[in-house]
Amino acid sequence: MISESEIIRKLQIAFPEYIGDDAAIINNPLNKKMLITTDILVEDIHFRRKYYDPESLAHKLLHVNMSDIVAMGGETSYILLGGALPPNTSAYIKQFMESFLQIAKTHNIILIGGDTTSSVDKLFLSVTAIGYAEENHIKTRYNAKDGDIICLAGNIGESKIGLHAFENNLDGFEYYKNIHLKPKAKIDEGKWLGTKSEITSMMDLSDGLFLDLNKLINASKAGCNIDLNSISMTNDFISTCTELGMNPIETAITGGEDFALLFTVKQDKLKDLAQEFQEEFEYKLNPIGEICNGNKMKFLKNNKEITLNLKPYTHFGEDS
Amino acid sequence: MISESEIIRKLQIAFPEYIGDDAAIINNPLNKKMLITTDILVEDIHFRRKYYDPESLAHKLLHVNMSDIVAMGGETSYILLGGALPPNTSAYIKQFMESFLQIAKTHNIILIGGDTTSSVDKLFLSVTAIGYAEENHIKTRYNAKDGDIICLAGNIGESKIGLHAFENNLDGFEYYKNIHLKPKAKIDEGKWLGTKSEITSMMDLSDGLFLDLNKLINASKAGCNIDLNSISMTNDFISTCTELGMNPIETAITGGEDFALLFTVKQDKLKDLAQEFQEEFEYKLNPIGEICNGNKMKFLKNNKEITLNLKPYTHFGEDS
Repeated sequence: MISESEIIRKLQIAFPEYIGDDAAIINNPLNKKMLITTDILVEDIHFRRKYYDPESLAHKLLHVNMSDIVAMGGETSYILLGGALPPNTSAYIKQFMESFLQIAKTHNIILIGGDTTSSVDKLFLSVTAIGYAEENHIKTRYNAKDGDIICLAGNIGESKIGLHAFENNLDGFEYYKNIHLKPKAKIDEGKWLGTKSEITSMMDLSDGLFLDLNKLINASKAGCNIDLNSISMTNDFISTCTELGMNPIETAITGGEDFALLFTVKQDKLKDLAQEFQEEFEYKLNPIGEICNGNKMKFLKNNKEITLNLKPYTHFGEDS
Repeated sequence: MISESEIIRKLQIAFPEYIGDDAAIINNPLNKKMLITTDILVEDIHFRRKYYDPESLAHKLLHVNMSDIVAMGGETSYILLGGALPPNTSAYIKQFMESFLQIAKTHNIILIGGDTTSSVDKLFLSVTAIGYAEENHIKTRYNAKDGDIICLAGNIGESKIGLHAFENNLDGFEYYKNIHLKPKAKIDEGKWLGTKSEITSMMDLSDGLFLDLNKLINASKAGCNIDLNSISMTNDFISTCTELGMNPIETAITGGEDFALLFTVKQDKLKDLAQEFQEEFEYKLNPIGEICNGNKMKFLKNNKEITLNLKPYTHFGEDS
């Protein structure tokens, strides 16, 4: 088994200023607010080792946490990593650590602490990420207002197809499997959207549009209307869903772990924002509906309200 | 099963400013450095649910993390909590959360975030604690110098007796069992020692004196001589060890999880410091040896070097 001291030695070499004491000491930049988030990933709840090579798992753990900072309009600076390691995982963990450090370095993230211990049988990982943003760039979930347009940056539902393919031992579907294994936090988009005062609220989609938008309207004490016709889906997404016997629109709405950004924008600013966004990022924003008074989420199809019988996204071992 | 949303609702009521968004936003006090530490506790590695009532577990998780901040000379301000919860633990987790929030409140600690998920069978908990200290009050492990006196604040070895009693289903030994279940971080002592410039290094004892002092001398690129005759043990500790067939001095040196403070002080300042400490805290500092050149830990008994065949402290499921 790789020992705690071996891991700490490796990390001390990589980050000598921070690792090796009871706590890490950090300087906070003046004039910025600190953003902090924590996440846990548990084997056979959030991932199975048979699908997740160590590099994909490191990628996902970092991107999931970066995505939370990004969704507030910030940039990630520091990370702390905890791991409870089951027997016979030395080789897996060594590769995981190497990938983790390499991906962190690519994003200028410094690992400033952690804790490792053994686990009886499951691999358990925890990450705490720290980022910073200027106060007036921070976006919360609380400020969506009646009339604001609800937008997505990024595709939804794709990760769910990947998970479905893995869980059913299906060959192929590599594009979707890769989205599931290695979702990309919308780092540049989140930072850019943070600078725009016309963005009234923002969050990332980890549990799927249906659950996450519900959180946003609850936090904002509002309701919303979602126009199902306006949700963008690629032709390949639609045909793949059909091939797999999955309803495309339901897959898009309930699929989790895509880490697209969900945000609201003042109605009269949408057109200019959408144009600027497309120039900057070379893909289109997707306006999907409108914030309204009340506290309900309504779905419209061909301008008529319809009822969907949705099964919210859950990780495979999780209660909904 | 208690759901994630139920836990989040409870926490939002307790800490409305912080809980419920992708990340918590915090203001850092000017003129102070931030200290941050993370820890994981795994069922059947660090604790067994049959010994740990929920309140004791909450106490321990908080104190273990506060102790890391304290050992740097700081005070804990914020905490993030992650939990992977196995089936049929709702009642346990509810009580745990209530105790956790109550103990945090007692110490003016704000819970600013977390993550909960399910777990297949074991309870996993992770905590990240954030504290602050004035820059010139921070104590690291790196600055112990030749001639400095090594001191302890607090008893050692007692938690190990408690653990031994639990693991062997022994009745009685309540004092030691309680020390094991509910160690107290030396909050006031750490803060006070932080203000003293004659303290050259400090850390807390979680893995036991033998392992932890080794970390301190390694970090300080030094050696040390420990005078076994000078390690304080109560009469009750000695007689209890004898009763249980444990060697008192070895139990004291290798026992972990007492969370005493280990620190070094400039030799010529020891006398005054010890007197002030006793006036302030109504118990005595315990000077146990001296930092020297080299890189070895030597044990002296009746002024002669002796070799101890020590088995370092491990949690019950852990590799050493």
